[in-house]
Order: sequence, then C-alpha cells, then structure tokens
Amino acid sequence: MSKKLTTRSEDYSKWYNELVVKADLAENSGVRGCMVIKPYGFAIWEKMQAELDRMFKETGHENAYFPLFIPKSYFSKEASHVDGFAKECAVVTHYRLKNAEDGSGIIVDEEAKLEEELIVRPTSETIIWDTYRKWVESYRDLPLLINQWANVVRWEMRTRLFLRTAEFLWQEGHTAHATKDEAVAEAEQMQGVYADFAENFMAMPVIKGTKTESERFAGALETYTIEALMQDGKALQAGTSHFLGQNFAKAFDVKFTSREGKQEYVWATSWGVSTRLMGALVMTHSDDNGLVLPPKLAPIQVVIVPIYRNDEQLDAISVKAKEIMTNLKAKGISVKFDNRDTYKPGWKFAEYELKGVPLRIGMGPRDLENGTVELARRDTLTKELVKQEGLVTVIENLLVEIQERLFNRADEYRNEHITEVNSFDEFKEVLETKGGFVSAHWDGTKETEDKIKELTKATIRCIPIDEKLEEGNCVYTGKSSRKRVLFAKAY
Amino acid sequence: MSKKLTTRSEDYSKWYNELVVKADLAENSGVRGCMVIKPYGFAIWEKMQAELDRMFKETGHENAYFPLFIPKSYFSKEASHVDGFAKECAVVTHYRLKNAEDGSGIIVDEEAKLEEELIVRPTSETIIWDTYRKWVESYRDLPLLINQWANVVRWEMRTRLFLRTAEFLWQEGHTAHATKDEAVAEAEQMQGVYADFAENFMAMPVIKGTKTESERFAGALETYTIEALMQDGKALQAGTSHFLGQNFAKAFDVKFTSREGKQEYVWATSWGVSTRLMGALVMTHSDDNGLVLPPKLAPIQVVIVPIYRNDEQLDAISVKAKEIMTNLKAKGISVKFDNRDTYKPGWKFAEYELKGVPLRIGMGPRDLENGTVELARRDTLTKELVKQEGLVTVIENLLVEIQERLFNRADEYRNEHITEVNSFDEFKEVLETKGGFVSAHWDGTKETEDKIKELTKATIRCIPIDEKLEEGNCVYTGKSSRKRVLFAKAY
Repeated sequence: MSKKLTTRSEDYSKWYNELVVKADLAENSGVRGCMVIKPYGFAIWEKMQAELDRMFKETGHENAYFPLFIPKSYFSKEASHVDGFAKECAVVTHYRLKNAEDGSGIIVDEEAKLEEELIVRPTSETIIWDTYRKWVESYRDLPLLINQWANVVRWEMRTRLFLRTAEFLWQEGHTAHATKDEAVAEAEQMQGVYADFAENFMAMPVIKGTKTESERFAGALETYTIEALMQDGKALQAGTSHFLGQNFAKAFDVKFTSREGKQEYVWATSWGVSTRLMGALVMTHSDDNGLVLPPKLAPIQVVIVPIYRNDEQLDAISVKAKEIMTNLKAKGISVKFDNRDTYKPGWKFAEYELKGVPLRIGMGPRDLENGTVELARRDTLTKELVKQEGLVTVIENLLVEIQERLFNRADEYRNEHITEVNSFDEFKEVLETKGGFVSAHWDGTKETEDKIKELTKATIRCIPIDEKLEEGNCVYTGKSSRKRVLFAKAY
Repeated sequence: MSKKLTTRSEDYSKWYNELVVKADLAENSGVRGCMVIKPYGFAIWEKMQAELDRMFKETGHENAYFPLFIPKSYFSKEASHVDGFAKECAVVTHYRLKNAEDGSGIIVDEEAKLEEELIVRPTSETIIWDTYRKWVESYRDLPLLINQWANVVRWEMRTRLFLRTAEFLWQEGHTAHATKDEAVAEAEQMQGVYADFAENFMAMPVIKGTKTESERFAGALETYTIEALMQDGKALQAGTSHFLGQNFAKAFDVKFTSREGKQEYVWATSWGVSTRLMGALVMTHSDDNGLVLPPKLAPIQVVIVPIYRNDEQLDAISVKAKEIMTNLKAKGISVKFDNRDTYKPGWKFAEYELKGVPLRIGMGPRDLENGTVELARRDTLTKELVKQEGLVTVIENLLVEIQERLFNRADEYRNEHITEVNSFDEFKEVLETKGGFVSAHWDGTKETEDKIKELTKATIRCIPIDEKLEEGNCVYTGKSSRKRVLFAKAY
C-alpha cells in the first residue's frame, strides 16, 4: 500500500477520504452507506466515549438502553418530529425469510408481514418518552437524567465516512424535568460539556450558540450548538443540545403530580454527539503526511521503534525499550514497542506518521552507547536527540505541549477565519475566497435565511451566545438588526 | 409500588419476572419482544462489560464496529449458517416513508423498495468475513483478534426479559488465524476467559465442555460452552466459543500467503456472551426478598441511610456519613449516601434490599453518640452494630467474604445437583424430582439425543472437558459408551 496521500491543497475532500482509509480509521462496507470502523479508529472513538461518559456521569446522568425499533405510529405523535425524522429511514416490514420453492435461495416470507412496520431508530425521543410515561408519576420521580450509547440509522443518499453515514454511533441524552428553567439549564449545561470536551480533549475550538428556527432539531423549542471550523474553511456542527419544551410530554402524555398536588406536563431536553466527531478530529489537525492526533485522544501516545541489524542488537535495545515502557506506563502514558521483524524501521516510521502517533522514539545501537534516543514529534515533524535520563519527564511535558499547541494552532486559524462583513458583495467575496465564518447582520426572517442559502450555499451556523448587541442592517435586505450571526458553508 | 415478591417456591418463573421489573433492571417496551434496560440494570451490565473488555484486551483483542445490516445474499454463502440464523429475523425492505394521500398518517413509500433486502444482524460472521477478505493478504496480517460490542436481533416468538429477547446486547469476538491449532487454542482460551469471568466476577460456578453436533453453532466445527445451574434446577448456557474451521474463509474467499509462499484459507473462531448473563446473575443468587448481587458487580456496594427526626440530626449524621464515604471511596468502594427527604428509612431499607446492595449502613443519633453504625448484609440478611473506628477495613473484608460466600453457596448447590444415573427410569425420575444436571452415558447418536429430548425435554448441555473416560452403556439404548455427558432441562 502506498502511504502517499493526495495533498489538502490538491483536493481537500479526496485527502480526507484517503486519510480515513489509509490511517486505518474506517472503510466502506458492502452495505450501502454503512461503514466499518476499524480497530485503530474505534480505539480513538473509545477514548472519546470514555471521557464523555465520565463527564455525563459527573453531571449526574446514568446510562440505559432503549429498543432499536420504533413502531411507525410513534413518529406521528409529535407533528414536527415526524417530518424531520420519519421519512428517510430503514423500515422493517417482515420478520421471516424462507427457502424459495424453486431452490433459488432465500426469500422474504410474505406470511410473516408485520401488522405495523417498525422503523430502525433515527433518534429515540419517541420510544423514550413512551417509556417515561410509565416512570414518572410524582415530582419525586424527577428529574430523569438518562443517556444512551447506541447506533442509529438515517437513510442518507450521499454518504462520507464518519461525516455522513446511514448507520452511525452516538450518544443521546434524554432528560425529564419538573420545570422549564431546570430543563433550559440542563440543555445549556450539556452544550457546555460538549464545548469542554471539544476544546480540552479534541483540541478543537468551538463557538457556542443557538440555531435559528429553521435549523432547529425537529420538535425543539431551542437548539444549542457547538460549531467548529475545518481547515478548508467549512464549518462543522460538532454537537447539539435541545430544549424540547413540553412537546414530547404532551405527545406521549407524560404528566406528574407537583409538590403542590397539581398535574403538570414534564419538561424535556435531548442532546447528542456522534462518530461525526471522528471526522471533525481528523479535519481539524491532520496534514498532508496523515493523521495528527491530540495526545489526550491518541490510542498510542508514544511508539518505540528499534533500529537494528541483528538479533543481538535487538535484544540489547529491547532491554532498554522495556525499561522506558515501564516508566512511561507508570505515568499513565500509553506506549507501544514495535519490534516486529516483518517490517523495516522506515516503513514503521511512515506508518506511525500516517496514524498520527504524537511521539516516536527511535533507538539504535549508537543510542545505547550514548545513552540517547531520537525523539520525533508528529505535530511539528521535528526530531531531536534526547538523553535517556529524564526522558519520561521530557515526554510528559511534550504531550502537554503538543495538546496545547494543536488547540492554539486551530484556534488561531479559526479566529483568522471569522470575518465581519457589512454588505452582501463582501459577504459573497469572503465566502468564495477566504471561507470560514462570516459574521453578518441578519433581519431574523426565514425568507432571508433561505434566500442567502440559495444564493451562496451558506447557512446560519449559529447565533453566538457571546455576541454583543450591536445596531446594524441585514446584509441582504438592509432591514434593521441588533446582533450579528455566523454564516458559513458547512459539512 | 408493593415491594413484595412472589416467592421462588410459589412460582419461580413469576418470581423472576417480578424481580427483574421491581428491582429496576429492565421492563418490556412498546415494541414486541424488545426490552428497555433501566439505569440500575444497565449499571450492572456496564460493570460486566468493563471487566470482560479488560479481559479481552489483556488477551490481545481490539474492538471494532461492523454494520447493523447484512445483505440477504451474504447468509446464503455459508450453507449451515443460513438455516441457523437467516430465518426468524428482522427484514428491512424499504428506505422511506411518506404522507398518505388521504391524510391518514405516514405509510411506506412503495417506490423506495430496496433491490436486495437487508437483515438486521442476528450475528455478524458473514459481514465480518466479507470485510476480512480485504484485510488479509499475507501471514503478516494474521492473526486478526477483533471484538465488537453490539445489539443483535433474533425474532423470538416467546420472549423473557434478559433470557430471550428479540433485540439483545452482546459482544461477539471474531478472529482469523494462519493455522488450525492457533484457532482451536483461541476458541479454548476464550471459553476459559468466560469461565473465569463467570466464576470470579458473577460468583457463578460453570462447567466447561463442548456441545454435541446438533447443539453446535450453525457453521461451527466445535462449540465450547460454559453451563451454569439456576436455583430451579434448570441449566443456562452462559457463553459459547466456536471453532469455525475454514468454513467462513471458504464462503467469503479469505486466503493468505503463508510464510512458505502458498495460498491458504484462513482459520476462524467466534465467541460471545450477551445480556442473557444478567438473567443468569439474577437467578443464581437472588432470594425471595429480591436481588442479591456479588460485590464485584454491584453498582452500589455500600449504601448509607440516615435515620433522623429533624434537620439538626440529619446535619450531624451527614458530617459523619461523608467522612465514611470519603474513606470508602479511597479504597475503590462504591458508596451512596441516600439523604432524600422524600422517603422514610424503612422504605429505603426495603428498596436497597430489593436492589441487592451488598452492605447497608444505618446511622442514627444514638450511633453518633456511641461511635457505631448498624451494618446489614444483604446475602445473609443479618445486622450487627459495628464501631465506626476501623469500619472501612471491616467493610473491605466483608465485601470479599460476601463474594466468596455467594460463589461457594452456588457451587454447593450446583455440585449437589449433578446426579449420576445408570438407567432411563432413574434418568427420568431425577429430572422430574430433583432437577439439575444428570450425568449419563450416551451412545453418541443424534437419534438418541433427539429421542431423549422428545421424551424428557432434557438436552445434552455439554460433554464436560474434565470428565474422565469410563466404560458404560447408553442410558437409553444400552449401546456402549466411553464417557458420561450432562443432560438437563435448560433456559
């Protein structure tokens, strides 16, 4: 396999597709739109899951599991939800196959037709709120703070590994509260958790904001989002948290007796991030040589590659390598010693570069003599000779430095790519030449939003939470506006 | 909610069903045969997952993820596999719904019919071996040691929470090897891992053995099993590991170039345990008061319940309780302080008894004065006054003791329920009166196995690995036999 990638400047999209496959993250399967997540890619996802799961539990949430299938009629109960989710989906209509009478193979048994079709869950609000009805009677049963790690299916026509697949893995939080304020606070809290995770683990800066009405989750009163910027200047929605009001409680008749003895509908939130974050991670940091991983999410943080001519040399290097491994592991650093004799050092160097291992230690006979190692950084592609003595401390510090540097580099790029514009010509020009977020006044109407999208393919990514009030005029209609919003082309 | 359960002697099956629901483990959903795993039940499953996942990784396995859907034609490629798995299954035939023209709701869009139906995976050998073909070229690519945590669907007609559900959660290991010996060793190793987990974490003794040909996994040359015994004398298959030979490699054309440069088919294993283990856990240890959990799998190992009349008392108790919590947590013991003012102590005592929390600490004003606590054991239902000084050590030791005692008790019961018989009358009598495993000679034919099953409902659970050779005569046909096998009625 050639490890050479198409460069980002040649074809960003092709670079991404090649990188995901060549770095052993994922590949397309024999099933249309469904991917196989390979062990190395899955190991990164597991690290993401572990951190998120810890954060969810620290904020009081518990995990549970709800059915994969949802009866078709459930979707009809929440009016806006059905239009958003129950259309492009996998529909189970039968529950048995049989041998064809003509011996041609197995066919669907028409006698085993379901009375009501089942939908493979595209999201689980309906089945979960159908369950919550049984769990909630009194204010004492609230809040319910529940999360689920699951696979979901949305029948996408154009798919791309991680970014848009028919089946994907995600977590979906579904909470139930006694008051509106509590539910809003929960939705905002989870947006904060997502932003924290994105910035402090993925080293990916994000902008917190709310969605416009037309970009909201189907069934939500407010959608909180975190928006990231990829290296090609396109935005990526990295996580959303929804305040659902009492819509699902009303649709599924979930009421509780309040402290005051009154029957009231329950308030809801839902929030999720998915394997799409893998795509965001790749596109935020990686370069033309392959993957670049922030140390906190790297399955292998340090790899040791022995350079040797004979078994005697390998044995001597192995003793030292194992000593270094023990010391690194004691500090909680994950390290791999690649002593395979089936591949040469040069091949291994290229392999770990492609796979984004943050630090590589090369060690040969001369290093043993001199008490040194060659230490290579993946992020800067620089190498230096380092003394074996004190190596663990050097590595500990470097991993912190790399994590910070990746964030800062992405943050600089992102900040350079937020451009304020005050005319529609400027708007179009920035979008076409520089890309990134365009900060512009908008008159607040769906019509204008749609028109701008039609003309430029840019959508309103969010109404930033931190944005200051400012009098201005809509960049398209000239009508008055009090706040800028962020437009961008998006994944 | 009444916490009173039907007793085991009244109706074992009803006791189980009630217990699973009342202890908040799981409940039936609105979707036929699919369960909701509630947070408390899921927390136990998460502890199981964490230990198993650690054991898999320690034996060199990595996790990955393969598609939920399998094209129908894949099943036809391995002849025996299709009969075993592709019949009672969920079939996806369409990928879109639409609004009915008469406004009656949403209906299946007949224009969105799939060219080839997709089966919701009942097990993943076919899709995984279709993928392995692309991953294996040379002996250097082997072995592949891969596991997947996933949901699977088998359209069962009669379902019971955890024991038999249409959708269930499981892990499935799928490995590929260069030689037969290596694959057999892998299958045996994983049987060992499962037995280790069952005995040392679930405190559930198991018998290791192999399945007879007719009880084997569809497509396997050998199925290794671990068999446990429930309190009603019925056996439960708790985990299986399969040596698949080259069947799937041939079906999916997975070859490799050996060190000697020859093209050879790859050797395979697969192995799995599922949420069925939750049912086994419940039925092995629990009693008429509710769940009994081995400390190593208990989400809450110790609960502290304050007993107080006013806020002042609660405050004083809280100070002490938090000190105890800190000390327990420092030892890695999970502890909950239930200071809810919405429930009374008596209610809480019953609640944690029902939920099988191994140790309960009761603390009132007098305990504060005397420097004591009331410590209650769930397994023996005994209570004693214990000094606060040295409490953490007492608890540490007790948790170990409870774990051992649960295993020993189950082991004694199991050993008392393995009965050697030498005539078919004896066979039937033991089965009807005493239950448990019946150890009997069998002539090795499928006909006899089927006949015995027809007459007694007992199946051959396994040919025990540890069984000594012994000349004898088949309990049914009188033909000669060299080894006893274990029969039982089973879940």
